[in-house]
Amino acid sequence: MGAVQEMLRTYPADLGRIGREALVKCIEECVNCAQACTACADACLSEPDDMLPALRKCIRTNLDCADICEITGRVLSRHAGYDANLTRAVLQACQQTCASCGDECARHADMHEHCRVCAEACRRCDQACAQLLSTLG
Amino acid sequence: MGAVQEMLRTYPADLGRIGREALVKCIEECVNCAQACTACADACLSEPDDMLPALRKCIRTNLDCADICEITGRVLSRHAGYDANLTRAVLQACQQTCASCGDECARHADMHEHCRVCAEACRRCDQACAQLLSTLG
Amino acid sequence: MGAVQEMLRTYPADLGRIGREALVKCIEECVNCAQACTACADACLSEPDDMLPALRKCIRTNLDCADICEITGRVLSRHAGYDANLTRAVLQACQQTCASCGDECARHADMHEHCRVCAEACRRCDQACAQLLSTLG
Amino acid sequence: MGAVQEMLRTYPADLGRIGREALVKCIEECVNCAQACTACADACLSEPDDMLPALRKCIRTNLDCADICEITGRVLSRHAGYDANLTRAVLQACQQTCASCGDECARHADMHEHCRVCAEACRRCDQACAQLLSTLG
Repeated sequence: MGAVQEMLRTYPADLGRIGREALVKCIEECVNCAQACTACADACLSEPDDMLPALRKCIRTNLDCADICEITGRVLSRHAGYDANLTRAVLQACQQTCASCGDECARHADMHEHCRVCAEACRRCDQACAQLLSTLG
Repeated sequence: MGAVQEMLRTYPADLGRIGREALVKCIEECVNCAQACTACADACLSEPDDMLPALRKCIRTNLDCADICEITGRVLSRHAGYDANLTRAVLQACQQTCASCGDECARHADMHEHCRVCAEACRRCDQACAQLLSTLG
Repeated sequence: MGAVQEMLRTYPADLGRIGREALVKCIEECVNCAQACTACADACLSEPDDMLPALRKCIRTNLDCADICEITGRVLSRHAGYDANLTRAVLQACQQTCASCGDECARHADMHEHCRVCAEACRRCDQACAQLLSTLG
Repeated sequence: MGAVQEMLRTYPADLGRIGREALVKCIEECVNCAQACTACADACLSEPDDMLPALRKCIRTNLDCADICEITGRVLSRHAGYDANLTRAVLQACQQTCASCGDECARHADMHEHCRVCAEACRRCDQACAQLLSTLG
């Protein structure tokens, strides 16, 4: 059993109406995407001098996406006093950010392998948020 | 000149169409609300034993609100490769979270002064996000 | 190949003298411990009324540990302009925090399974930090 | 009264042996330094193409310093279940990071005003951490 699932299994109260599998998947993808984006921003920054200017927007979007995925993973790890409106708004922001960052990374995927790997992490996180949103009702 | 304004003044490129005054105000309120919510969660946790159970939802919403205000302040502090859709989605999530947290803190404001102070910080941040959203077009 | 390792493999520059395997392991444990601590704080908060007061310190230490593990994972995911003094100081803070949080969670492990699982995550992260510190020279 | 002080004033329990004035000052400087470093990283990223390569290390250190100052401000905003060893380790990491970031920003202060302003924020935060550490005993 994965670590996220293990912590969810030991939660001492009712989880409410949220989809359990979709929840585990979404937390895992948020945590993974946050780390990939932090690493991709740094990898972009480490590219040769002549490539650096073209990666400005990618670095910036990576930093935003790392921040937003990280706190989405946190919000989803909390179940006490659950508020569907709050969860929905955060998931929507995470989806939009993963879409923006995934698009930007995809533009550099042929040139930079870290952008290709990061774009895939963004896509998976975007989909996991969409999936979880569909269970919120 | 405040610290946020000072950093914005020294930004070496164009800021784009975002409202400058509304931007400074919103970053300041996000940073302030994040700290207030972190402190309020801890103050709730430090209330006498018999009051603690009623503050569960307040602690949880405070933790979410601290996280989201903090990263909204970060996203708004970045101007390189500006993406209006991303900024809008994050501001909307921040508004929703400040509304939820402000409502919950307001329910305890008569009993706990830290909740009263924190509810005011949430209201100001909510308004500053709304104001900035209206300048995004 | 795990996601952390995949991003490290695609890093476009030299990593310097840091131990590669110890680095991957430490980032993975930081990310995992951060999520476990966020979830454990919330699980503590969701325990029955009569158990809540005894979990105050555990919730607080969980929140600190989540924050510090998260940023340690971020610092370790950056390699550009590497600064050994900075990395060492952050790893030492992370070790101390995981030790404090692991001890506190362990005190509740018999009663609360989430504390048992979280204490193990803290121990593994503490050890991974120690291991990485020993490669920094 | 400032917002940090206002939240501290409403804290419902004893603060322990930590110096109250030094605590308020240190939280304020951490929060301020975190925002300055986030903004400075982005300002560096927005400098003309030919200046960008020389700012790699500065951007990286700014990102680390933003992360560490932010969580130091959070740890210091929590008083429940106070643990002096944990607080000390985090303050030491924050001091080291502010010293590293302040030094790096200072190297670019003549050329880039945002680095000059950010270096000053790092110096003040470094000093505030030192001052607070001296009250911990």
